[in-house]
This record gives sequence, structure tokens and C-alpha cells, in this order.
Amino acid sequence: MVFLNGEFIPKNQASVSVMDRGFLFGDGVYEVIPVYSGQVFRLHEHLARLQNSLDAIQIQNPYSIDKYQHIFNELLSHSLDNNHSVYLQITRGTDTTRKHKFDELAPTVFIELNPLTPKTKPELEKGYCAITQPDFRWQRCDIKATSLLANIMYAQQAKQHRAEEVILHRDHIITEGATSNVFIIKNDTLFTHPTGQYILSGITRDLVIESAHHCGLNIQESISNIDEIFSADEVWISSSTREVMPITTIDSKLINNGKIGQHWSQVYDHYQSLKYAG
Amino acid sequence: MVFLNGEFIPKNQASVSVMDRGFLFGDGVYEVIPVYSGQVFRLHEHLARLQNSLDAIQIQNPYSIDKYQHIFNELLSHSLDNNHSVYLQITRGTDTTRKHKFDELAPTVFIELNPLTPKTKPELEKGYCAITQPDFRWQRCDIKATSLLANIMYAQQAKQHRAEEVILHRDHIITEGATSNVFIIKNDTLFTHPTGQYILSGITRDLVIESAHHCGLNIQESISNIDEIFSADEVWISSSTREVMPITTIDSKLINNGKIGQHWSQVYDHYQSLKYAG
Repeated sequence: MVFLNGEFIPKNQASVSVMDRGFLFGDGVYEVIPVYSGQVFRLHEHLARLQNSLDAIQIQNPYSIDKYQHIFNELLSHSLDNNHSVYLQITRGTDTTRKHKFDELAPTVFIELNPLTPKTKPELEKGYCAITQPDFRWQRCDIKATSLLANIMYAQQAKQHRAEEVILHRDHIITEGATSNVFIIKNDTLFTHPTGQYILSGITRDLVIESAHHCGLNIQESISNIDEIFSADEVWISSSTREVMPITTIDSKLINNGKIGQHWSQVYDHYQSLKYAG
Repeated sequence: MVFLNGEFIPKNQASVSVMDRGFLFGDGVYEVIPVYSGQVFRLHEHLARLQNSLDAIQIQNPYSIDKYQHIFNELLSHSLDNNHSVYLQITRGTDTTRKHKFDELAPTVFIELNPLTPKTKPELEKGYCAITQPDFRWQRCDIKATSLLANIMYAQQAKQHRAEEVILHRDHIITEGATSNVFIIKNDTLFTHPTGQYILSGITRDLVIESAHHCGLNIQESISNIDEIFSADEVWISSSTREVMPITTIDSKLINNGKIGQHWSQVYDHYQSLKYAG
């Protein structure tokens, strides 16, 4: 069961016209929102970011927060899973021809649930591998857009290198991961790229910063050179579905001799407490 | 009548799954190919560029050149128009979940014809307006990808400024238009950005260069600063459907006092002769 343009229908019947501007142009935005024990996590923050993305590309938000919550609840009532991620996509809608008339179209809204099984702490403690690559994406990474081909190309590279993530650098400055935010910990200070046009302002990023502050780390939202990552005490990535994950190998080089850091362990625990506090 | 995944069907019945990676991720490529008097123009060049785009993102080309020609002919046999543009889109295909498994999927192929009515010489001789903007697109503009949100945003700006095109500059260097290549003519020399990752290697771009050479212009595929555009003798843009078009106003400033250049007129005429030579 998925939601598409006002209807709850089986997923295998959910289709859009080839004239949908999402299909023709990647002309849409999306959100991925975790649901823990039936509670949509940080709903308002995710819907506020959705609104920012829609505003940036001048699509009217078709629904109210209450309407989204109602749709999520309806989908959740049909699921047997405990934890989920909500996938929510809005495109500019379907026109009759492949032109940029920008007449008023009815946006396409697609929402589905996926089962979410976050990795356990013992799994995460094994550490993960990443590779680094120049960031050739566009310069509006603050918009959570469905025009994701650059990210797809990085995902292919990650798969070829059996890496969990590709850490990107623009003019040698670390920006973020292809599907995550990136944190460097050095001398009890957390460094992460400031928000702006070069990174997505992650909801989980904010929670990791909040958790790190709670655990006594100094917070520096400032730029770091890609070379600095190899001498970090700890490197983490974060995303809504992966939460906060320790990276112990980058470009086949061990970070901190491959050891999981003590800060990660504390921040992970605090993050878990936030999940169930709502 | 359109072609979708092996079938010729009415356009209003042509739909794809919401799990099509074209819809979810802009994970596809496309071509727009003019058809003059029933002859597909520069078919092999367009299909070679399609192959380059597919190779760059690792999608197998599902059809041979003969198969494409057969599909185009079938669509043309149902049309009453004289001139057309073929729109051809290939996405990575439809998966069961929104994951980057990169298992072998059957690519989605969508092809349709649109009527093509190139502007006449008297229409073009009125001249067109453009605006300039920093180029914030990704750095693989050589791939003709459907992840086009940056271009959509420029199209919105063009519409708001009642401009024909947005001329882009990256680090003050003119790259191309949001939907065209850009040419500056100064002292009987044509300047245009060299091919590479910052521009699409246009089929029409090559034809304009060929025509300009034929008409006695010197050809310089080299970079130009955005400031230089305002003191140009002539500025043109080119695309498959707009052919070669004179720009006489940029950012509300007149180029060459708003006069159409003599070189444009000759190059336009030669381009027309190429169209019907095939």
C-alpha cells in the first residue's frame, strides 16, 4: 500500500505519466523520515525542510502538516513492521508536453513506507569503510532534490570499492557524504561543514551536533581540508536511516589505527535516547 | 502515439511505475533529434552522443541504431506534421525498492515525436534577449542527463525576465546557455567554450562551427570571460530545435547596438542548406 495523489493503492499499481516532470526532468524534491515504534521522528523538522526545498524551486506545498500526518498514520496502520522510514516525494506535476510553461500544475505526491532496521551498536562497532572523491555535484545541495544522478554515480563508485560511503571534497574542502553528513573529531572537538549551498542541512546532522554537545565535545561548524581527515581521532557519517556511523577506513587508510572512538560510543547512546524521547 | 518499452501506445496511456529510477532519482539520459521532411537529422551523431551519456552512467544501450530508426519511422508514419523533433529518454529501469542495488534492470525507453516549427529568418532577425547567471550546475554537463533541476531553475528565471535564454558563467568564464551552446563573434573570429565536462557537446554546436568555418570565420574553441560578451560583434546561441539564433540584448544591454550581424545571416543560410542535405 502506497499513497499517490490522494489515493491509497497497491505499490505495483502506482504509476505516473511519462509527462510527469519528475520523470522527464528530475523536477521534484523528497524527504526520508524515520518512524520509531509508530512515532514519526522529528516530523516538524522534516516538513520544514521539505517546505524549504519546495520554496527553492517554486512548487506550492499541496498539503498541510496535519494532512501529511494523516497519510503517514493511514500507511502505518497497514504495516506490521515496528520501525519504518517514510519516503515522501513531490514533483511539479504532469503537463501535456515537455515544455517549461510553468503554468499551474497539480503537484504529484508519492509517499511510501519502508521497513527500517537500524544497525545495532555491536554491528556499528566493527567500523565502516569510505572513499573520497571530488565533489562534482551542483551548488544547491541545500535543496533535497530528486535530480540525483551525481549521487547515483557516487553510489556506483562506493559499490565498486565496497565502501559504505563516498566522502566529497570541493576545492579540497570536505563538504559531506554522497548520502550523509560528515563529522571529524580531533582533540575533543567536532568539526563539520557549515550549512549553506554546499551541503544538505541534515535533521540527523543537527541531532548529532546536539548529542555531541551534550557529551561534552566542542562544536566547530567550520571547513576542514580533505587531508585533515586522515589524522582525525574519529570520523562519523550521519543520515536519517543510518543514524551516526563510525568510519574507520578511508581510501584504504586506517583512521585512529582502525579503532572506534570513545566519543562515538557516547554520542551514539545519547542519539538512541533522543529517538525514543520523540 | 508514443513508444514506451516496446509498445506503441496513446500518450495518455503511457505511464511508468513510481519505482522507475527516472522518476525517483533522475537516473536517465535523453536526446532531442530534429526531423526535417521526414529525414532524421544527424541520426548517427545523436545516437553516438546518447551512447556516450549511457556509458558515463553505466546503463546498457537496449537497442541498436537500426531498432531506433525503425521506431522513429513507425512514429513518423502516424504523424501528419512535416517537421518534428524526436524526444528519446532512457532510464536505468524499474526496481522493486528505492535502493541502489545496481542489479541488472531492464532500461525504460520512452520516445515521442513533437511538431517542430523552427523560427523563420525574418522572425530571427528581430533578435532575442538573454540574461547572465553564475553556473551552479554539476560538473558533468557533458552527460545529457534527465537530472535537470538546475536547468529548470534557470528556465524559471528566463521566464521571469522574459528572456529567451540564460547564459551561464563558471568562475567568470562563459560555459554555455541553460539549454543551448553560446558563441561570441569578435573581429571575424568565432569563440566558443571547448568541449569537456563543463558543456554539452552539441550536435548543432558542431554544425554551427562547420557553417562558420565555411563562411570564412576563424574558429577559436577557447574560453571567454563573461565581461567580453558585452563588447562582442555578435552573440549566438544554438540548439537542435532553435538552430542558430542571434542574441541582441544581454542583461538589458544592447549587443552591437542591437543590430543583427552579417556573419549570423550567412551562417544561418548555410545551416539551412545542411538541414536538407541530411
